[in-house]
Amino acid sequence: ISPTLGKLQFAPFSSALNVGFWHELTQKKLNEYRLDETPKVIKGYYYNGDPSGFPARLTLEFSAFDMNAAIPARCCPAFGTLYNTNTFETFKSCDKKSLLEKEANEIWESIKSGAALENPMLLNRFLLLTFADLKKYHFYYWFCYPALCFPDGIHIVQKPVCLGDRFSLNQIQALQKAYDELCQTEGVTALPYFLIKYHDNSVVVSPLKKWDDFFQDQGGKVTVGVYDPCNLSHYPGWPLRNFLILASHKWGNILQSIEVLCFRDRTMQGVRDITHSIIFEIKLPQGAFGPDCPKAVGWEKNQKGGMGPRVVNLSECMDPKRLAESSVDLNLKLMCWRLVPTLDLEKIVSAKCLLLGAGTLGCSVARTLMGWGVRKITFVDNARISYSNPVRQPLYEFEDCLSGGKPKALAAAERLQKIFPGVNSEGYNMSIPMPGHPVNFSEVTMAQARKDVATLEELIDAHDVVFLLMDTRESRWLPAVIAASKRKLVINAALGFDTFVVMRHGLKKPKQQETGNACFSTAPGPSDLLGSSLFSNIPGYKLGCYFCNDVVAPGDSTRDRTLDQQCTVSRPGLAMIAGALAVELMVSVLQHPEGGYAVASSSDDRMNEPPTSLGLVPHQIRGFLSRFDNVLPVSLAFDKCTACSPKSWNLCSHF
Amino acid sequence: ISPTLGKLQFAPFSSALNVGFWHELTQKKLNEYRLDETPKVIKGYYYNGDPSGFPARLTLEFSAFDMNAAIPARCCPAFGTLYNTNTFETFKSCDKKSLLEKEANEIWESIKSGAALENPMLLNRFLLLTFADLKKYHFYYWFCYPALCFPDGIHIVQKPVCLGDRFSLNQIQALQKAYDELCQTEGVTALPYFLIKYHDNSVVVSPLKKWDDFFQDQGGKVTVGVYDPCNLSHYPGWPLRNFLILASHKWGNILQSIEVLCFRDRTMQGVRDITHSIIFEIKLPQGAFGPDCPKAVGWEKNQKGGMGPRVVNLSECMDPKRLAESSVDLNLKLMCWRLVPTLDLEKIVSAKCLLLGAGTLGCSVARTLMGWGVRKITFVDNARISYSNPVRQPLYEFEDCLSGGKPKALAAAERLQKIFPGVNSEGYNMSIPMPGHPVNFSEVTMAQARKDVATLEELIDAHDVVFLLMDTRESRWLPAVIAASKRKLVINAALGFDTFVVMRHGLKKPKQQETGNACFSTAPGPSDLLGSSLFSNIPGYKLGCYFCNDVVAPGDSTRDRTLDQQCTVSRPGLAMIAGALAVELMVSVLQHPEGGYAVASSSDDRMNEPPTSLGLVPHQIRGFLSRFDNVLPVSLAFDKCTACSPKSWNLCSHF
Repeated sequence: ISPTLGKLQFAPFSSALNVGFWHELTQKKLNEYRLDETPKVIKGYYYNGDPSGFPARLTLEFSAFDMNAAIPARCCPAFGTLYNTNTFETFKSCDKKSLLEKEANEIWESIKSGAALENPMLLNRFLLLTFADLKKYHFYYWFCYPALCFPDGIHIVQKPVCLGDRFSLNQIQALQKAYDELCQTEGVTALPYFLIKYHDNSVVVSPLKKWDDFFQDQGGKVTVGVYDPCNLSHYPGWPLRNFLILASHKWGNILQSIEVLCFRDRTMQGVRDITHSIIFEIKLPQGAFGPDCPKAVGWEKNQKGGMGPRVVNLSECMDPKRLAESSVDLNLKLMCWRLVPTLDLEKIVSAKCLLLGAGTLGCSVARTLMGWGVRKITFVDNARISYSNPVRQPLYEFEDCLSGGKPKALAAAERLQKIFPGVNSEGYNMSIPMPGHPVNFSEVTMAQARKDVATLEELIDAHDVVFLLMDTRESRWLPAVIAASKRKLVINAALGFDTFVVMRHGLKKPKQQETGNACFSTAPGPSDLLGSSLFSNIPGYKLGCYFCNDVVAPGDSTRDRTLDQQCTVSRPGLAMIAGALAVELMVSVLQHPEGGYAVASSSDDRMNEPPTSLGLVPHQIRGFLSRFDNVLPVSLAFDKCTACSPKSWNLCSHF
Repeated sequence: ISPTLGKLQFAPFSSALNVGFWHELTQKKLNEYRLDETPKVIKGYYYNGDPSGFPARLTLEFSAFDMNAAIPARCCPAFGTLYNTNTFETFKSCDKKSLLEKEANEIWESIKSGAALENPMLLNRFLLLTFADLKKYHFYYWFCYPALCFPDGIHIVQKPVCLGDRFSLNQIQALQKAYDELCQTEGVTALPYFLIKYHDNSVVVSPLKKWDDFFQDQGGKVTVGVYDPCNLSHYPGWPLRNFLILASHKWGNILQSIEVLCFRDRTMQGVRDITHSIIFEIKLPQGAFGPDCPKAVGWEKNQKGGMGPRVVNLSECMDPKRLAESSVDLNLKLMCWRLVPTLDLEKIVSAKCLLLGAGTLGCSVARTLMGWGVRKITFVDNARISYSNPVRQPLYEFEDCLSGGKPKALAAAERLQKIFPGVNSEGYNMSIPMPGHPVNFSEVTMAQARKDVATLEELIDAHDVVFLLMDTRESRWLPAVIAASKRKLVINAALGFDTFVVMRHGLKKPKQQETGNACFSTAPGPSDLLGSSLFSNIPGYKLGCYFCNDVVAPGDSTRDRTLDQQCTVSRPGLAMIAGALAVELMVSVLQHPEGGYAVASSSDDRMNEPPTSLGLVPHQIRGFLSRFDNVLPVSLAFDKCTACSPKSWNLCSHF
């Protein structure tokens, strides 16, 4: 055997983790892994068709988490283990040496057991250690492609030469054809390792596992092929390393040397070309290995060339609006990780909310809905923004008051977009027709009133939850009637000076159940009353509405009011508290499996096991700021109520 | 006597109610009248020095409500009665006929009794009926200058001529001098009515009350002078009307006619001139009046010339920033009208508030402070606005997150200005030094930490209330120590997932009292314990702080936290509720006569008479959103507390 020509060196892999990968990791972390830090199997690939000058890359993209995802044509898959840590501290203090040793050992075991011969993918593994700072969209990672080492290196017997200089055109074409056919037979896009026999006019290739039979007629000459991501004319890429360990372990005692063909496969100007593949011969060391796993290397250096984690700042390259959406989702999903794993966010986020009134309450309700990720928010109001509003109505600013003031409904909808472009907000600058307020009986005003009623009805139809947030009692009547007849969830909030009421209206049963099904009778059945006091265990369909305790017909409460009666004079904190509670009540009701039909919780239920993971589902929350106290009364529907009894719905249709 | 030359007509007054008047009316209404509708005496004036072409005006300005306010030179005062109604409906339905009759009757009575002779101002009265829509800065008003009427009018005997055509230069100068001297003698700026005797080279004037003596030597010739706001060469102004009724009532049976000199007094190009005064003679009707008050007229027509109220829209001409300020004040003052008459708004509005933390809590606290009219709000925060913030932190918008995000403290301060330009807001983009967080011991970082401590100390010094609204426990420590040592009111708010605590820290007694005065001993004295359970009747100076129950030294709670622990994962409504309650707690404490020293209210006190008109003054409010419940625990200060015990203050000074 000829003297060695120095030792073989390998071009290391560069990790290429693209935006899609990080995005998908974010989604997995948020929705699936959450706080789970156990290792996960992921899948990358490498390509060998790059123009020269490109580094050998192991690419991970969005498909990395899907084991069934297709590998792009002429790419070779590689499987890896993802260690995603919950904290930066865990990431930093992770024992990378032992992670590498563990992985190397598995490779070594697969070599010793022969499993790697059967499935050469076992040689082709990587590690990825990550920490995803999802608040800032900064991703920290360490990448490792473990390579077992020969104690004394690998000696070159014949220097690498270009395949084009060594093979005839016939041989080259025959190799190409044979490789393609083998891939097809094996059903893969690329084979990482294979065996080659060649003669003047023929080239045959085979999977690794057929080694013994394949080379029987070769008289000790062995050529192996490796799918090589490297482009350099004198160096093979990293994937060859573990393969040579396998070869040495298995045949080191019968072969002195081995020929290696680094198969490279590119298309230049429409013509396929493998002539830049390289071929060389190395010495197989004798008895290089004992039973223990040899030393391994593979942690990638960082961008500065030092040993440190790499960092990717995606906040800079992401569309800011997308970033905002993901960030808002993140905050919500965090709730599901540990605190409320059973939380069904979708029920909340997808609730279409109609806010009647865009004043102090309307603004606070809208802000809290935004916090819960609600995407569809519609305002109805007919007032303009006045100078006293912005300090108490948190969607308006001084500028909105100039020149007579913008219409509140439109300005509120616009502001929501400014806060979060992902929201779908609309405003209707419109009065809500009120009984007791005389309509001037001209053609024009009557037509307008009819149009307003029709619009209101359409709006209520198109939403899931109706918030009554007006500053008069009677303006709540018509929407309450319409919403009751359409079985929409109604959340009502009203302020005094330092008291408030936040309530859900009773939700009538659907019509077919009401008449056809005896077990839904509104008369309390025996089971309803089991172990219950007069006002406990009242199901949603028997609960009263805002008007159930009324003894007067709706009148005009805005006439003849003094200034302090016209303005809702209330302690400034009150609307924020009531607005926030109105939304939290909605959320609790939506989380209950029976939604608006849920049995109402009362103050007494505070001692009991709550019906949902978010807690109680009261009928009413009455708050007393002077005592910093809330009580949770429950009241029954009044069967002749001017708003929620089915009788009133006919009245409404004659409007 | 010569045949009449037609009937005398009078130029009516125009009301001239300037911006100052409406502004002052607004202030009076807000701060003094509130809901009081009883008639008020106000004071206007008229001038007679205008160039020709100006209408005769009764002017009301800001001084109208001050009976001691000086009347401008050469202006004649007139007293009126203001009827300011609380509602537009009262304004519209007011019985103007009877108001006029009542006023006319008083004039008539003053004529019959002779009081008007003694005090001619009694003839010169006006009525003003107003409704001030202070939400919109629209002012509605009716003005009336009541004039009693002669049943058949007043017949002219000698047509009005210009005084310059009738009097010699000597006479004119003599009249001018005599009038000036009489004003001086009487101590007034102008005399509305006076008596005149003139001969070729002399003019003598006299007050009305001397009528009988003054004219004794005139052989039946009587000349009266009236200070005439009218400029027209053929018509006198309105003030003459009641004076002629007086003359006719008193001397109608002894005089057939009377000469009238309408005294007009202007300065043209630096030269005083009364030659445009007019003089004429009228017939005094015989026995024109019975005992009953004659018919009266006087309600002013509106701008369109019809009988209707005038309206002034000041929102258009006011500086919008002033308008915003007044509107914000209005909403606050409305609270004092009926609901909480004892509310001392000044204590709240003038409180200088330092907000440590400009996140979810900081934003909500700032918004509620704005609602209460607080004018000085300072933020400290070292974070930048991230994409997830705007939907939960109600001072930020999507735009604020771009390019890495604006510093929160600065953006929050800017936003407050946008909401209400009258606020004095500042932001400090600064870290709060924390024990347990290792300071990198370089010169630079040590110097920065020292500077931050100094700035924090200055800021706490310069404010009255310190809000602790950070998201870590240990960042609250240093400000708590400094604020305790400086006896500043500390309001602390902290969030869990669906629970919160809002508390005031105990307020230590001033140093001199602490040591020098035995009755302020911190050991409970007998009176402290009278009829009290263990945790009732605890005065402010014995209350604990956030750290009093701590058994661990402050450490670094931000290290090694998972994403859901780093973000304050809380139900979105929680920060709004806790932020609002933090401010309402501050307000309640400030309203208590003992402020931060007030005895703490507990949940048990909800049944008792509240200590202030706003209600309880708890030590802590602990809220449980899942139960929609708050409790009000009270706890004693721990005398070895790491934050609020005087021992810790020394520690701090070594920082």
